[in-house]
Amino acid sequence: MAKKYKKIVGNMLIAQSGGPTVVINQSLIGAVMEARKHKQIQKIFGALHGIKGILGEDLIDLGRESLETLKAVAATPSSALGSVRKKPTKEDCQKIFEKLQKYNVRYFFYIGGNDSAETAHIINEEAKEADYELHCFHIPKTVDNDLRENDHTPGFASSAKFVAQAFMGDDLDNAALPGVKINVIMGRHAGFLTAASALARTYPGAGPHLIYLPERAFDVTQFAAQVQAQYKKYGRCVVAVSEGIVDAAGTPIAAAYTKEVDSHGNVQLSGTGILGDFLVGLIKQKTDISRVRADTFGYLQRSFPGVVSENDAKEAFAVGREAVKCAVGADIDGSIAIRRKKGAKYQVYFERVPLCNVAKETRHMPDNFIAKNGCDVTKAFLNYAAPIVGKLPKIGRFKRVKAKK
Amino acid sequence: MAKKYKKIVGNMLIAQSGGPTVVINQSLIGAVMEARKHKQIQKIFGALHGIKGILGEDLIDLGRESLETLKAVAATPSSALGSVRKKPTKEDCQKIFEKLQKYNVRYFFYIGGNDSAETAHIINEEAKEADYELHCFHIPKTVDNDLRENDHTPGFASSAKFVAQAFMGDDLDNAALPGVKINVIMGRHAGFLTAASALARTYPGAGPHLIYLPERAFDVTQFAAQVQAQYKKYGRCVVAVSEGIVDAAGTPIAAAYTKEVDSHGNVQLSGTGILGDFLVGLIKQKTDISRVRADTFGYLQRSFPGVVSENDAKEAFAVGREAVKCAVGADIDGSIAIRRKKGAKYQVYFERVPLCNVAKETRHMPDNFIAKNGCDVTKAFLNYAAPIVGKLPKIGRFKRVKAKK
Repeated sequence: MAKKYKKIVGNMLIAQSGGPTVVINQSLIGAVMEARKHKQIQKIFGALHGIKGILGEDLIDLGRESLETLKAVAATPSSALGSVRKKPTKEDCQKIFEKLQKYNVRYFFYIGGNDSAETAHIINEEAKEADYELHCFHIPKTVDNDLRENDHTPGFASSAKFVAQAFMGDDLDNAALPGVKINVIMGRHAGFLTAASALARTYPGAGPHLIYLPERAFDVTQFAAQVQAQYKKYGRCVVAVSEGIVDAAGTPIAAAYTKEVDSHGNVQLSGTGILGDFLVGLIKQKTDISRVRADTFGYLQRSFPGVVSENDAKEAFAVGREAVKCAVGADIDGSIAIRRKKGAKYQVYFERVPLCNVAKETRHMPDNFIAKNGCDVTKAFLNYAAPIVGKLPKIGRFKRVKAKK
Repeated sequence: MAKKYKKIVGNMLIAQSGGPTVVINQSLIGAVMEARKHKQIQKIFGALHGIKGILGEDLIDLGRESLETLKAVAATPSSALGSVRKKPTKEDCQKIFEKLQKYNVRYFFYIGGNDSAETAHIINEEAKEADYELHCFHIPKTVDNDLRENDHTPGFASSAKFVAQAFMGDDLDNAALPGVKINVIMGRHAGFLTAASALARTYPGAGPHLIYLPERAFDVTQFAAQVQAQYKKYGRCVVAVSEGIVDAAGTPIAAAYTKEVDSHGNVQLSGTGILGDFLVGLIKQKTDISRVRADTFGYLQRSFPGVVSENDAKEAFAVGREAVKCAVGADIDGSIAIRRKKGAKYQVYFERVPLCNVAKETRHMPDNFIAKNGCDVTKAFLNYAAPIVGKLPKIGRFKRVKAKK
């Protein structure tokens, strides 16, 4: 258990990090609105572009924003404070800590994924070492749904909804003009978002007919044969592929075709159509199917306004609020995890967990979510994902009674 | 003027052709529901996959579908009868005409773009030659908005809404993690859909910062310099590029990188990320900007359920209804064009125009819609497009008052 502290009076600083989501501002505003209720929090600083804004003292006064603005920002996609992918060095963290002291920051909140949890963890350790009372919290966010300790993470459900809706439409497009259609979905190491494509199946024979996840080795020869088999069965084939698919040796399929890496050492997977085009080439080479297309859903998955899961928006707001509640209570540090209550009805609760439990490492799709053939999901996954994602559009189809002359 | 005919009693056949849209079924159901009101229309056949279904006698009985199904199908994206890209030969048209006679079809409706209008036109000429009374109508559809005679075409406004919303989100994503972001938009010869990205600009400095249309020659060296200039000004740059951009000689920029053509002789532009990746390479090569990404919006632009312009859905239904009204009236053939009333308030009316006026040729963006610098749109275009597209999501932004220590 973390050491218990008194309610120290001081300023708050909040920042956003990593890839944006459509609900990351809900978490920001959830925290800010909760903070406004507590006297021990004096000024509320927003750092622009994460730790970069702290290092450069590029701070804005969130106490000066109207309630109307806060509400409008909450409902707006992408990080309103700006974001960053920079991973702080040991010296960076020391400098960040100096800045926090300079601005008398006693309440620090960092919204992001596991890389961001790690950053918060390092800064927190600095503060501990210096015996400086810093209430330091990570607020979860990631469309990849790959944070440990969490049943699911804010941002995932809305992106999953986008992916599911996109597949609903694209499957009907493919049914109208048959062929092979490959859609490349975000998710570097975890297949949750790609798996969500399965929610699009609302009638017998609906796509996606094949789903490839980073959790299972991708075999190019098998891939062509599997597509061929589905094409033979349905006269068409819709495929969901994670951008992060790897071969048996664990090498990303996309890696040979792109070189760009960020400062976390991650290969660039989004913002390019190269994996999809490579897979199209494979199918054309190894089968006699002529109409083969690929789309890479890209950044739309994490930024499209108007396609938001209601649960996701509420929960994203709640984790921000809960982080502040914990911080102004007796807790010194942690991350807010979303847990699911047992029972038929979908309900969640929130729990503070140690920063190091969430930092750095990635949660993967559990085995019981992945079909035995390695290219589909199970009913267990659908039961898991459907209530989080919520309502999807209805699809109407003709009975198609054959006409008589 | 077309010859006037009596109200002949017989069957109706309707089919869908070309790339699907999210409202193409509105037109289908608009026609079917109107047809049900008229006694001279007996059976209502739907041909599966356009002329392919006529040639193969793959017809369904639309009289056997419930009102509930019709309403559900109307609200569902993509061609519910299936589509086709096949261009009929002279012999095909003769065979199609034989099939229409065999099924006693006197009312024929073909929903599609200019290629489809051409098909209807050819079949119509066959009927005339044989002195067979066929009420033959084209019902307009195209996300490209490139049909002559029309103020705008059903399908365009919903796709434009998708593009505008996508850019709203992606612009905020780019503001959060600055760099150059290139988005490739559908539109083979007409830039309307790419131009619609400009509707995403809701605050000073908002992207897209550059818009490249097929109506203006694309210069690779100028492109890099223009991106560099915007990047210098804003610290970032969001670019909208039509998939159909051409060089000064009229050669599509994408043409050297892809070989697939359909039976209308069109190069494959959608379903590949190759143009976007090529443009990213250009910027990386010619500037020192490191974060450069491209997304190709692909088929989502024409198939995404739930992002529908209200006007578009209504008008798409209306053109189907109007076509049947004309056909059961005294008109023998034509296409239904959407015209806009003059005046401050957005209002449209429908007019029957000759098939040959719509067939084959493409309407382009008029000069007064394109900025003088060739890489933006004008206020006249925004005034034209905004009322058709309708309501877009609201964007909330902080005032960003600098914090004091």
